[in-house]
Amino acid sequence: MKLIHCVTSVALIGTMALAGGLAESAKGFGIKAIPESSSELLKYIDKGEDPITEAKIELGKMLYFDPRLSRSNLISCNTCHNLAMGGADAIPAAIGHKWTMNPAHLNSPTVYNSVLSEVQFWDGRSPHLEDQAQGPIQAGPEMAAPKELVVERINSIPQYVELFKTAYGPNVKIDFERIASVIGVFERTLVTPSRFDDYLNGHPDALTKAEKDGLKLFLDKGCAACHNGMALGGTMQPFQVAKQYKFANLGGFTGDANGMVKTPTLRNVTETAPYFHNGAIWKLTDAVKEMGSTQLGITINDKEAASIATFLGALEGRKPQIIYPILPPMADKTPKPTFD
Amino acid sequence: MKLIHCVTSVALIGTMALAGGLAESAKGFGIKAIPESSSELLKYIDKGEDPITEAKIELGKMLYFDPRLSRSNLISCNTCHNLAMGGADAIPAAIGHKWTMNPAHLNSPTVYNSVLSEVQFWDGRSPHLEDQAQGPIQAGPEMAAPKELVVERINSIPQYVELFKTAYGPNVKIDFERIASVIGVFERTLVTPSRFDDYLNGHPDALTKAEKDGLKLFLDKGCAACHNGMALGGTMQPFQVAKQYKFANLGGFTGDANGMVKTPTLRNVTETAPYFHNGAIWKLTDAVKEMGSTQLGITINDKEAASIATFLGALEGRKPQIIYPILPPMADKTPKPTFD
Repeated sequence: MKLIHCVTSVALIGTMALAGGLAESAKGFGIKAIPESSSELLKYIDKGEDPITEAKIELGKMLYFDPRLSRSNLISCNTCHNLAMGGADAIPAAIGHKWTMNPAHLNSPTVYNSVLSEVQFWDGRSPHLEDQAQGPIQAGPEMAAPKELVVERINSIPQYVELFKTAYGPNVKIDFERIASVIGVFERTLVTPSRFDDYLNGHPDALTKAEKDGLKLFLDKGCAACHNGMALGGTMQPFQVAKQYKFANLGGFTGDANGMVKTPTLRNVTETAPYFHNGAIWKLTDAVKEMGSTQLGITINDKEAASIATFLGALEGRKPQIIYPILPPMADKTPKPTFD
Repeated sequence: MKLIHCVTSVALIGTMALAGGLAESAKGFGIKAIPESSSELLKYIDKGEDPITEAKIELGKMLYFDPRLSRSNLISCNTCHNLAMGGADAIPAAIGHKWTMNPAHLNSPTVYNSVLSEVQFWDGRSPHLEDQAQGPIQAGPEMAAPKELVVERINSIPQYVELFKTAYGPNVKIDFERIASVIGVFERTLVTPSRFDDYLNGHPDALTKAEKDGLKLFLDKGCAACHNGMALGGTMQPFQVAKQYKFANLGGFTGDANGMVKTPTLRNVTETAPYFHNGAIWKLTDAVKEMGSTQLGITINDKEAASIATFLGALEGRKPQIIYPILPPMADKTPKPTFD
């Protein structure tokens, strides 16, 4: 079903790109701009059971950067989803506790704009960030911290307890789900509007001629069949539609039960090499050509790939300014790190 | 010689604490305040061959946070000297490339106020931060990056090249020493004035009664024999003067050729557990008691240790606000990370 839907979209796209203005064409393919107005944006990111507040953002940020959420005191959320590096880690497959590489050789997706994805993780098994954040903290090859350890650490640090009370009220129960949830609240704010959004929001000069040419090619070739919505990605799509992925054997990941894989967002893609679920391709133009072959069954030549990559550069977003937090010290009773 | 000097100082201290005001006593033992005026402070930190400028601070900060200075792309200066965590890493002995623990089980010293130390590294083998920064980047168990790799990585990233030109002029040669030096410039700015400095600078109410009592005890017991100067530490001193350190066997470190060890700064000490060169003691009052026994040959009881620790809390400094940097992306030609 999904496979047919995707292929149908590709056929439609060719037609639509020819009609009307380029920005309208992009919208016609389901691409959405990040709204200019922050109240409008809030409608998209302030969802779920944990409403965004300033106190939660600040606390979530501290926890996001705190390596004491890991068994070893060495690995934070930011280690693999580094806000300085496009929200990712610049290595093919995540490396965590005890220098263990992700067993399926999975690449760390960017945290920026992850709130705009419909699902989380490469196999889409998590519905939202508040849920997603629970995974890597506990996973043996990542932060390797049992829930109980994390809860005991945080509850042992008086300043953290106070900040949870400020954020959630005096009767807050600081359990593992609450800790992950407030991290998710912070992550939901990591949205990066780009010049492409400015363009879609009615500023035709926000893109250069070369970027507009690249956008047109991006649409004409059918890339927006999967890379659409506000994330330009973030939905589950069939993978290897036309042909086997060149590095399919690396890591053995085959997607969810139906062979579907979460389409990565293209926002900030110029900052998040290497590419694909197993991080096997470092060069953006190679990645573009590979997707043409694997997903669309077409050849994208070097010149076309370069043009599309030029457009993708316009998706480099304006990052929220992050004041690096000062974390509260451990108390004498705070559980100590272990390294094995 | 040095040993005798240290013991003599201890004897002097007892006498001086009795005479004059408490702040004057502290100064009499060689303790210096961080100056209130930033131009005055600059005299202490703007030393050496690489003068401080805004452009260098910003570039040095980026490099300080950039894990691509390591072989694996995973470890930055900030990994072990985390500015969120008192400038240290909250583990006993540094862990770096391939999850390797420091072979001598050496604890990562705080980077905050390290400019105020006379020498760098536990064995004092480095004269200043610009030199020190070269060590961990190359060390196998730390960032494990050969000089050539670091130079090639940085020179391959156009935005870094531009920033070096802005900081050092259009003809700058971006060699390994230049890279380490600008990191050192940033580190020199990481000075944290505290309430104790306010007190010494003529604000008698900056300390509580309990903190003043702790300070008096700190002076009376002789702690300032080694913990003096603006760093309250930072000079080479004999170790195990009166007795063997309780955990002397852990790691086998015996100091420099003369058995001298760099006295750690006491600034922000409440934020930098675990303590000592091998990170064997987690509880600050235990550390205070151990130093009484090991260095001064006296018994510091629980109540006295608690009082001294209360004073040490007044050395928690005001940290410079750090905007987390956005790092420039790699180019296609940037050397890739390796993990073995």
